Amino acid sequence: MDRIRRNERLAAMTRILVEAPNRIFTLGTFCDMFGAAKSTLSEDIDILRGVFAQFHLGQLDTVTGAAGGVRYRPALAPEEAYNTVKELAQTLAVPGRVLPGGFVYMADILAMPSIVERMGTIIASHFYRAEPDFVLTMETKGIPIAMMTARALGVPMVIVRRDSKVYEGPAVNINYLSGSGSRVETMSLSRRAVHEGQRALIVDDFMRAGGTARGMVDMMREFSVTVVGICVLMATQEPVKKRLDGVKSLLVMDGIDDATGAANIHPASWLSQAAGKA
Amino acid sequence: MDRIRRNERLAAMTRILVEAPNRIFTLGTFCDMFGAAKSTLSEDIDILRGVFAQFHLGQLDTVTGAAGGVRYRPALAPEEAYNTVKELAQTLAVPGRVLPGGFVYMADILAMPSIVERMGTIIASHFYRAEPDFVLTMETKGIPIAMMTARALGVPMVIVRRDSKVYEGPAVNINYLSGSGSRVETMSLSRRAVHEGQRALIVDDFMRAGGTARGMVDMMREFSVTVVGICVLMATQEPVKKRLDGVKSLLVMDGIDDATGAANIHPASWLSQAAGKA
Repeated sequence: MDRIRRNERLAAMTRILVEAPNRIFTLGTFCDMFGAAKSTLSEDIDILRGVFAQFHLGQLDTVTGAAGGVRYRPALAPEEAYNTVKELAQTLAVPGRVLPGGFVYMADILAMPSIVERMGTIIASHFYRAEPDFVLTMETKGIPIAMMTARALGVPMVIVRRDSKVYEGPAVNINYLSGSGSRVETMSLSRRAVHEGQRALIVDDFMRAGGTARGMVDMMREFSVTVVGICVLMATQEPVKKRLDGVKSLLVMDGIDDATGAANIHPASWLSQAAGKA
Repeated sequence: MDRIRRNERLAAMTRILVEAPNRIFTLGTFCDMFGAAKSTLSEDIDILRGVFAQFHLGQLDTVTGAAGGVRYRPALAPEEAYNTVKELAQTLAVPGRVLPGGFVYMADILAMPSIVERMGTIIASHFYRAEPDFVLTMETKGIPIAMMTARALGVPMVIVRRDSKVYEGPAVNINYLSGSGSRVETMSLSRRAVHEGQRALIVDDFMRAGGTARGMVDMMREFSVTVVGICVLMATQEPVKKRLDGVKSLLVMDGIDDATGAANIHPASWLSQAAGKA
């Protein structure tokens, strides 16, 4: 009857769903596309859900209700998430990466789409249920990981700037305490960038005391936006008391080994616990 | 015989290929994964190639030779590329987006993963054959589109900074003429970021005279890197003579309409020609 075979439909639907993460497609969309009945497509989706689960390819959900349909959410199994983060920890821990001042060179890693995409997926997985409207980050290094988190969540990313720019229109500027808390700096966000009542997920690459993240939280208050979560790729163990609570990180850096010159970096405990490695 | 059905294999392979653009997977990888024979997988890939072509879902290629296998490249049909860029032109042309100084507010668009991903795909499609080793951009606004171009090409992105940063290690700084050519500015790139003999694709969000792009070309010369292409999301019509040749853009801005206050923005002619709209 229908001229496109199930084989072909399944492949095409997979491609379409996977390239539009967290977006709901109605069955009707696929009916039109393939000239197939809804009952046929429901069976297709049952098959796909099974395949995605079996091979740990992410989550395929059927969403019920008026705006219902089918939705793909990138996700890694807890064990795979842990292993991926652990592998990254080992890559970053090599002595040659430690720079004067105790910084770790991460720019190359933060620019690898495949690595950053997996990190963004792990972060997004943790916040799908919080339903953020956008991902907020501070220029520059946090942008790739924020972008990939936003991609997985199917929402825009919003960039806080260090200065207001002529091409961003009217902006809100606030001051915040950076570094060890002794330096006052300014951050700026375009008035058009976000709207009152929205929900923000803050994502950044690195956190020491949390001054920048604290500034972003304060900025969101100026816009009457709710912060539903804060997640960074790497946080330092010290200071234990950050300038804000409830921060998640994928990696924890616990100082530099004086003898080897290597950084002591490991996956955060919530990841190892989820994978049963604690 | 094999316990995983063709249906399921096709869906799983599609998901794996689509999330790793431009990466070659050997048939052996899939043989191990699904416990199927190479001949069976060859048939699978023939089916997939047909589906991808029929529904314009991107390019699925079989790569022959020692490092051969199968590879997915995101791509839009010329007509779809043109329509996507034209739609963006219309979105950007509304009067409310024009800011004092003739700037167009694009920050929200540059932060929408779904839009930026399609733009990155169009750019990447044009440069697959140039085989860049990385995508180079200048902070900050160009990063999302450079990231998505790099993702489609399956290569890293490299960010040129305005200043050298302690967490990027030793860096090369160069001066360049920005804006109307009267201002000398500095850009900085970490010594570790790229290697002699590599091939760079330069991607940025906006170009007027081309001073920044020219600076990036000069920077690549310092690293003995070949520039294989330069592509921006939007270039202004004026000045017609840019500071460098061979620049591609997706959008062209031809001034502001005094009467309506709207920007005059349209798809570049190479896109309309490819779509037969010229």
